[in-house]
Amino acid sequence: MDISNYKTLFLDHLKDKIHIREPKNLYEPITYILSLGGKRLRPILTLMSCDLFGGNFRDALDASLAIEMFHNFSLVHDDIMDNAPLRRGSETVHEKWDLNTGILSGDAMLVMTNQLFETYNDKQYKELMTLFNQTALKVCEGQQLDIDFETRNDVSISEYIKMISYKTAVLVAASLKMGAMIALANKDEAKKIYKYGLNLGIAFQLQDDFLDVFGQENFGKQHAGDIIESKKTWLYLKAMTLANKTDKDKLTSLYKVKDKDSDMVNLVIDLFKKYDIPNLVKSQISVYTEKAFESCNQLSLNISDKKKLIDFGNKLMRRKI
Amino acid sequence: MDISNYKTLFLDHLKDKIHIREPKNLYEPITYILSLGGKRLRPILTLMSCDLFGGNFRDALDASLAIEMFHNFSLVHDDIMDNAPLRRGSETVHEKWDLNTGILSGDAMLVMTNQLFETYNDKQYKELMTLFNQTALKVCEGQQLDIDFETRNDVSISEYIKMISYKTAVLVAASLKMGAMIALANKDEAKKIYKYGLNLGIAFQLQDDFLDVFGQENFGKQHAGDIIESKKTWLYLKAMTLANKTDKDKLTSLYKVKDKDSDMVNLVIDLFKKYDIPNLVKSQISVYTEKAFESCNQLSLNISDKKKLIDFGNKLMRRKI
Repeated sequence: MDISNYKTLFLDHLKDKIHIREPKNLYEPITYILSLGGKRLRPILTLMSCDLFGGNFRDALDASLAIEMFHNFSLVHDDIMDNAPLRRGSETVHEKWDLNTGILSGDAMLVMTNQLFETYNDKQYKELMTLFNQTALKVCEGQQLDIDFETRNDVSISEYIKMISYKTAVLVAASLKMGAMIALANKDEAKKIYKYGLNLGIAFQLQDDFLDVFGQENFGKQHAGDIIESKKTWLYLKAMTLANKTDKDKLTSLYKVKDKDSDMVNLVIDLFKKYDIPNLVKSQISVYTEKAFESCNQLSLNISDKKKLIDFGNKLMRRKI
Repeated sequence: MDISNYKTLFLDHLKDKIHIREPKNLYEPITYILSLGGKRLRPILTLMSCDLFGGNFRDALDASLAIEMFHNFSLVHDDIMDNAPLRRGSETVHEKWDLNTGILSGDAMLVMTNQLFETYNDKQYKELMTLFNQTALKVCEGQQLDIDFETRNDVSISEYIKMISYKTAVLVAASLKMGAMIALANKDEAKKIYKYGLNLGIAFQLQDDFLDVFGQENFGKQHAGDIIESKKTWLYLKAMTLANKTDKDKLTSLYKVKDKDSDMVNLVIDLFKKYDIPNLVKSQISVYTEKAFESCNQLSLNISDKKKLIDFGNKLMRRKI
């Protein structure tokens, strides 16, 4: 089935299942954030994975909605922590309502995530919840690491990869694994599809770092926002490992300034270019994408089904989804 | 077994199971809030209920810890929403650390609550989680109602009772019911112990409202804090239904002032007394306590076991626990 079909099915299910109820001030922000759109990457992956492993993708609809609910919960709370006014071009929940609404609606979303899994039988419920809990805790840990890194000056590249794995990639991986679990795929296959998702998720996040600075379009985001806010992305960390003493000091002092002006941003970009960072990050993205495809090739699926996963990965990395 | 024994067992289990791990900034606030003390009312009820229904109370330790974890999660997030600097005489998490730490550590606690139930088998896990999810969502709804009431001038007594049921009593009720479920008590018995807890929880909260204004000791809380902050408690709502036009207007205008001085507080207290509110709330507390004991008497437990539940209720209402 085509990816756009999964998306349509998912959106129908979302509309079916999520309604504003009383107290309205709790549930309105939930339907609001869930209806802001987005790629719906994670729920599509759950449906596709279930389908590829021979399950009925309709059985995966509730799990896919749970995953999307959790993802949106994390957006609502992260947007508070990041002081973000906009999400997907619209006001964030804490901005449109207030801080307390953001906290409390987010909390309710986390509980509703649990509830969406209740559709599955005892055994599957516990298996799915166990994976979900592991994943959700890692997402919290990833967010904490991200916060910790803001004030640390000794973050290594491998720590950074761990942070983005936890904050982003594990949920992509779990989305795929849940589809496989619902299709009753064997454990080995489920592990492989998890690995595919994990590496694809890392590649995706590294590409995000790259596009933020060197992308043509910026998906409505501020150009080089990561540099302006002194985010220690892969680009910065790699540059710091390669730069000579003078350039390192320059980068360090530039990153002490929050809200850099465009001249300062350009100085940083020039330093990145001097140390070939754009090409280096592109090659890292390829490494993780290839790792993902390797796991994919090891799956006992037929070639056309594997091709679907690889096509999906390629489309995603070209941001055509 | 004596109540203090349940408490000791619980505290040992807490110490055993909850450790600071990496990232420290995420997990330190969790051990901090869990070690601030408190009556440990809810976990004691889970252990006692399991014991009374013939289960091995050790089997209920993880559920009791889950309940306490969730309760403390709600304290951390509520303290942010209420802007509270102190909890049990110590700094609140968002005060000792910061807002983001309060939000994120709270989120992790909600996920850890789920995980603590993983010790139970598939069937019990789903049953316990289903009850937990229902309860947790009601707690969120209760908190939302509480926030909504701040800006509403038409809150009825029955709406208030619904709010405190959701915000406080359902968790007390679920604590008891979980103990019964783990002891494999029959469904009817589990329902009755739930009702016992629900009514006891309502009585407990009404008594909290009473003690805030008319209590001798105030458990380290500010005297008449509810009046100072214009909280629409049962006392205020009842007074508003009984007062004549002049007094109603007086109360309304007094409640428009936040941070009242002691003269204003005394004016409110005098009005409460004029309309016999202290006695009226005491009789309401008795009504709910009696309702609780009725459910208790309907249980198929032997008399000495029923007496334990009734003694517990009486001790709790005299705040000797």
